[in-house]
Amino acid sequence: MRLAMSVLGSLAVSVGVLAQTPPLKLDPVERQMPAYIQERLTAADRVLFDKLMRVGIESAWSLVTAEGYPQNFINELTQLKPNYRMVGRARTMRYLPNRKDVREKLYAAGPQLNYKSAEEAQPGDILVFDAGGETRAGVSGGVTTIRFLVRGGAGMVIDGAMRDIPELEAMPMQTYMRRGHASSVSPIMMSVDYQVPVRIGSVTVIPGDILVGDSQGILVIPAEIAAKVADTALEHDEQEEFQRELLLQGESIYGVYPMNPATRKRFEEYRKKKRN
Amino acid sequence: MRLAMSVLGSLAVSVGVLAQTPPLKLDPVERQMPAYIQERLTAADRVLFDKLMRVGIESAWSLVTAEGYPQNFINELTQLKPNYRMVGRARTMRYLPNRKDVREKLYAAGPQLNYKSAEEAQPGDILVFDAGGETRAGVSGGVTTIRFLVRGGAGMVIDGAMRDIPELEAMPMQTYMRRGHASSVSPIMMSVDYQVPVRIGSVTVIPGDILVGDSQGILVIPAEIAAKVADTALEHDEQEEFQRELLLQGESIYGVYPMNPATRKRFEEYRKKKRN
Amino acid sequence: MRLAMSVLGSLAVSVGVLAQTPPLKLDPVERQMPAYIQERLTAADRVLFDKLMRVGIESAWSLVTAEGYPQNFINELTQLKPNYRMVGRARTMRYLPNRKDVREKLYAAGPQLNYKSAEEAQPGDILVFDAGGETRAGVSGGVTTIRFLVRGGAGMVIDGAMRDIPELEAMPMQTYMRRGHASSVSPIMMSVDYQVPVRIGSVTVIPGDILVGDSQGILVIPAEIAAKVADTALEHDEQEEFQRELLLQGESIYGVYPMNPATRKRFEEYRKKKRN
Amino acid sequence: MRLAMSVLGSLAVSVGVLAQTPPLKLDPVERQMPAYIQERLTAADRVLFDKLMRVGIESAWSLVTAEGYPQNFINELTQLKPNYRMVGRARTMRYLPNRKDVREKLYAAGPQLNYKSAEEAQPGDILVFDAGGETRAGVSGGVTTIRFLVRGGAGMVIDGAMRDIPELEAMPMQTYMRRGHASSVSPIMMSVDYQVPVRIGSVTVIPGDILVGDSQGILVIPAEIAAKVADTALEHDEQEEFQRELLLQGESIYGVYPMNPATRKRFEEYRKKKRN
Amino acid sequence: MRLAMSVLGSLAVSVGVLAQTPPLKLDPVERQMPAYIQERLTAADRVLFDKLMRVGIESAWSLVTAEGYPQNFINELTQLKPNYRMVGRARTMRYLPNRKDVREKLYAAGPQLNYKSAEEAQPGDILVFDAGGETRAGVSGGVTTIRFLVRGGAGMVIDGAMRDIPELEAMPMQTYMRRGHASSVSPIMMSVDYQVPVRIGSVTVIPGDILVGDSQGILVIPAEIAAKVADTALEHDEQEEFQRELLLQGESIYGVYPMNPATRKRFEEYRKKKRN
Amino acid sequence: MRLAMSVLGSLAVSVGVLAQTPPLKLDPVERQMPAYIQERLTAADRVLFDKLMRVGIESAWSLVTAEGYPQNFINELTQLKPNYRMVGRARTMRYLPNRKDVREKLYAAGPQLNYKSAEEAQPGDILVFDAGGETRAGVSGGVTTIRFLVRGGAGMVIDGAMRDIPELEAMPMQTYMRRGHASSVSPIMMSVDYQVPVRIGSVTVIPGDILVGDSQGILVIPAEIAAKVADTALEHDEQEEFQRELLLQGESIYGVYPMNPATRKRFEEYRKKKRN
Repeated sequence: MRLAMSVLGSLAVSVGVLAQTPPLKLDPVERQMPAYIQERLTAADRVLFDKLMRVGIESAWSLVTAEGYPQNFINELTQLKPNYRMVGRARTMRYLPNRKDVREKLYAAGPQLNYKSAEEAQPGDILVFDAGGETRAGVSGGVTTIRFLVRGGAGMVIDGAMRDIPELEAMPMQTYMRRGHASSVSPIMMSVDYQVPVRIGSVTVIPGDILVGDSQGILVIPAEIAAKVADTALEHDEQEEFQRELLLQGESIYGVYPMNPATRKRFEEYRKKKRN
Repeated sequence: MRLAMSVLGSLAVSVGVLAQTPPLKLDPVERQMPAYIQERLTAADRVLFDKLMRVGIESAWSLVTAEGYPQNFINELTQLKPNYRMVGRARTMRYLPNRKDVREKLYAAGPQLNYKSAEEAQPGDILVFDAGGETRAGVSGGVTTIRFLVRGGAGMVIDGAMRDIPELEAMPMQTYMRRGHASSVSPIMMSVDYQVPVRIGSVTVIPGDILVGDSQGILVIPAEIAAKVADTALEHDEQEEFQRELLLQGESIYGVYPMNPATRKRFEEYRKKKRN
Repeated sequence: MRLAMSVLGSLAVSVGVLAQTPPLKLDPVERQMPAYIQERLTAADRVLFDKLMRVGIESAWSLVTAEGYPQNFINELTQLKPNYRMVGRARTMRYLPNRKDVREKLYAAGPQLNYKSAEEAQPGDILVFDAGGETRAGVSGGVTTIRFLVRGGAGMVIDGAMRDIPELEAMPMQTYMRRGHASSVSPIMMSVDYQVPVRIGSVTVIPGDILVGDSQGILVIPAEIAAKVADTALEHDEQEEFQRELLLQGESIYGVYPMNPATRKRFEEYRKKKRN
Repeated sequence: MRLAMSVLGSLAVSVGVLAQTPPLKLDPVERQMPAYIQERLTAADRVLFDKLMRVGIESAWSLVTAEGYPQNFINELTQLKPNYRMVGRARTMRYLPNRKDVREKLYAAGPQLNYKSAEEAQPGDILVFDAGGETRAGVSGGVTTIRFLVRGGAGMVIDGAMRDIPELEAMPMQTYMRRGHASSVSPIMMSVDYQVPVRIGSVTVIPGDILVGDSQGILVIPAEIAAKVADTALEHDEQEEFQRELLLQGESIYGVYPMNPATRKRFEEYRKKKRN
Repeated sequence: MRLAMSVLGSLAVSVGVLAQTPPLKLDPVERQMPAYIQERLTAADRVLFDKLMRVGIESAWSLVTAEGYPQNFINELTQLKPNYRMVGRARTMRYLPNRKDVREKLYAAGPQLNYKSAEEAQPGDILVFDAGGETRAGVSGGVTTIRFLVRGGAGMVIDGAMRDIPELEAMPMQTYMRRGHASSVSPIMMSVDYQVPVRIGSVTVIPGDILVGDSQGILVIPAEIAAKVADTALEHDEQEEFQRELLLQGESIYGVYPMNPATRKRFEEYRKKKRN
Repeated sequence: MRLAMSVLGSLAVSVGVLAQTPPLKLDPVERQMPAYIQERLTAADRVLFDKLMRVGIESAWSLVTAEGYPQNFINELTQLKPNYRMVGRARTMRYLPNRKDVREKLYAAGPQLNYKSAEEAQPGDILVFDAGGETRAGVSGGVTTIRFLVRGGAGMVIDGAMRDIPELEAMPMQTYMRRGHASSVSPIMMSVDYQVPVRIGSVTVIPGDILVGDSQGILVIPAEIAAKVADTALEHDEQEEFQRELLLQGESIYGVYPMNPATRKRFEEYRKKKRN
């Protein structure tokens, strides 16, 4: 996902003569947070989220795993927008099958949690709905999501269903879910817990986690290690860019990926040159 | 799905200053039946189907449920065309696992039901194939579907598989199904019943039902209540449009969605003004 | 899939008057192998693959079945690129759940099989990974696939997961898989066997099989019958093109599809004329 | 299932010295219809059902397949009673997801079909409920089933759920189903069709089919070929009994199963002797 | 489950002459809480649980539904002991996929919740583990369950897996689960919440709920309505016992089930007589 | 599974007075290989298999995991015999979806692998069939299994289906599988590889692996570590027996499980005394 489409498009034409001449160069994709979010982020978030917009998710996954979190990747959901990078901070909710007594008590105490989370969202937040995989009712819909969007919302992750899918598809942010449904949350489900640890697919997400989503799925980064992961992954990506370039020039994969000492030396020169 | 994409596209640019100034307005999406169907509909259908092309599926679902049909939404199938509204009238078929004796008797009595239904289709019809979720054989294919299309066919809903997917993707109508398959219906399946009640996902569809499909799935409206559902849902949508507008202008969701008395009063003024 | 989109697009406009005048003609879709592969194929492969780029998969399926292979169609995987024809020759690998002793022995003996297969790939090859449907780890990723692409790779079929999905989506070849995942193959899986018979969905694929993929799924053609299948299917397609044309002109499906003797006579005249 | 448990129990003790002496003999299991059914059957049914109580289901499957019915075995359901042979004649019902309009019309026309089928059942009947695999509501329960039992009912096959499982477990007949549920059929399901072709798992069952069930699942035999299948299968079983005996005496499987000419000769002598 | 097995056993023998003479009588099954629990219950629980040991689960389900709880039946789990009535009070736990940071914080604060719940269990408690359906690790095992048993534990309900299945099978209480597994809870899962609302299958269970389990599944009764449900269901069961008796005597189901006025009158006389 | 049923049965009676007096003692279950196998094992196997008949599977799982094999437990299959310990050595086969060309080549080269494996089986062998989870055809059946049994076969593990289930249920060895089916292996499947690494559920099994099965599932122990695992697990079990005893006497779980230093000291005294 770090290769620009235009480059690969031209590859189709010119690769036939690759063995002789290396006509391709790597144009790193320029991914950015939407302006309406970026402007409103704290300075620290702006820096962090900008790095995570550009990082290789695979590199970041390796580092998150190495830090002791091998179960932090969600790949059971479907994304509404193709080829779209989502970065933000988890704001979690837990939904359970509806039952009258619990529902009455909870809803007497305050608004349903999709309203509350939309209203309280901070710029760069991602709403995370744990609905236990239930797809017979949508946990929220388009109107509520407009409020979230205006607040600076950066995405939604639902282990369940949503309403108003075409409207969500048109919004400038990503939504991950299992399926759509036209039904309101009632009478099948009810919102129960706000900002607690939840289960999405086979991953525990806690409030404040940094989420990085793409077509593969969503990497869940504990907030404390997010900056370190971003920095180290970008370094690792630099190495992979070099390896991609060599392979596009027709070199053998042996010695290049993974690198043998000779290739590593060439890489260090390449990096030195690039940084000057 | 009632917000124009261009509006939401511009949202990404201008929302940063939303709090100060309300620069967005709602452009209702203009959805229409394809001309080749519309021209051939009866006058009554033209009016009804036109309304259902524009209605919010979520509003319509609420009304269908309120009329006593809480199990009438299909969300287990996949659609071939993204962001495409399907409206039409169900023409149903039932397929069963093949067995020689039943097949011989049935096929001696007349053509297979995919041929028959294509030939007998009326403008605005939607072919509904109950294949019990079987995906190891396609119930019909591209050639037969051309006949259906020429007859004014408005869509297909298959709880099973279809052949010739790329050809169907290119047609000016929607197809919902589980998967594609290159296999003919034989030797796995056979067509058994025509114009009987069938099961699609977890919904019973009967001949004459009015179907409204979108990315969320398909709402099944009993014919007798279709006009009432369409009219009432459009009224409800007007209210949601107003709510969307307020939220896009930066108002809090509390009081707006759902409406408190003050907002309702503003809405009534808005509606009055809009109608003059 | 043999109807050009432009034709069907115009159908939406003009079909209303179809009954009177036949304004539509069939423009067969022009499908071709990407140039970077085509140039490097052997002469025999270039002829065979070119035919299979154009053939109707349904016609070919009938012939493969008639030759004694009724279980040779894969429809359990998802494709990364919409509306894209894949043709090539299977190069197979088998992955198993990881266990230390087997892994150590295998990896001491040579490189992991995704590297090896990318390096040894011949122009027009399709990498086939049998990972037993496991989606908790990717069997390979973007960097390795660049080597495969440069070697003339024509596609990938994975009964499991892949990394770097956005990068793969941008490549000029098709990938079929179950899901994406950011994880490396370890610690969940390991590559075990190279160029052996494997199971993809419910089909056995052997090295050298000719694969033809489209939106329906992938037809697996034993190499020995591939040329015969291609030729006979193209003949059959010619007949279906004629039938499509008649139906687009408003003729009844009865007698046309399947053909009665009168239609068959008209078809033979049509074919004769077309060939002069 | 044609080996008596007592034999195999003793096998555990004596098999250690099998190579020297053949101490085992085959005691064919004596399976019979329950007396309360048998007494009330027609003479023809008594003969047919008695044979099918003793036949090898695998032999019968081969013959049903050879007659042109390769898709006639149900193995997707669970049986309530272990190690219990069920034989009888299918009386079918079709259930669909509930919807008010259809339900009102149907239930105005007569009793629900579980009542009707229990009341009209003939001795040796098996009730077959096609509920589309739905397990959120039971199609019938214990009280109704008592009526069926008293009428001479021989079993139940439900592609869905039943109520009152412990009561059914205590009855002298077999029940196959997906799961139990305490819910009445309403409000999830409704009975729609009586004595029509239905789908159970991936098999079509029609009224009058002869069903033979065991722990493997249920063989569906078209009525017209049932007598022939029973007779031929019993002949084939005789051969397998001989093969079992040879293997228990320690002979190699090669030449015995399948038989080479020498073994076949020995079998013919064995059969001749046995019949005198 | 209200018919004694011995009665139904004898039915097989005598039913053939049922039409003439009514030789069967209903012996209500005597179900009781195990003595080791019963002795230690509070007086109120002893009365309530005793009624629920005898009640028809289907009758109770109807009443729970009528009170506004139509989603309170769990039928997705498997029971270890056949034909065994479980009654008790829910003590809930919630497990999530393991992650280092959450686990360290939680386990520093106190013992894992399977230990804690076993230690704090009151007589008649049922441990309810919400493990999100995860079956790759057992949430608890045999040793811990001995402590629970000694404390007066009445059953376990696990939406996930357990260790030591043969040991649990030998215990004098019921266990419902998805599958067994030999793995400890780590490294796949961790215990997170104690005595909170949880999801089991598609039902919300809260601490204090009264659970009644049998082969059909588990009915979840809110504590506040449990006494009323028990009393009313027993009354309803009395009516069903009468209906069963009539049907066993060979009466038609029409008029008996459901009752017409004449049968109701007979029932009232029967009840009067029975109570004297 | 290390508590005798009789003990736990009596628990139900006496536990009410447990707090005062500790009336229960642990009677370790006596599990043994069937005599017909045991007599024919090599001396080394007799010792190893005897230990593994008695070991706690959970203890053994911990040790296998600690040796570097965290993915070696199969819990996706169903067992034919309840409460039955299976121990033996894996003899593996791989089945693939049938295709004519591969089948003809393979079957020309020698007998089908279910025959071959039955004929070549050594005492204590377990046949392991990888059929990719396919349940539409049985990989083998009762007659062939008799030959395996006579050879000293100790069990069967099938990731797929088997024929002749009642016959297998009556045999003095365990069978694990997905479902039964009456169909022969053809025309759906074919046997392809003998004594190669295979996938069962999500575990790789290689020829020579030592399998230990129980109601939880099957632990796969690499042959090289089997003796060490058996010895160490038995030691660990001794500790758990002590812990069980303390808990049955009414002690708190805290300090006992896991052990605190004081309990450990008591355990060491208990062990010393027990060994004298």
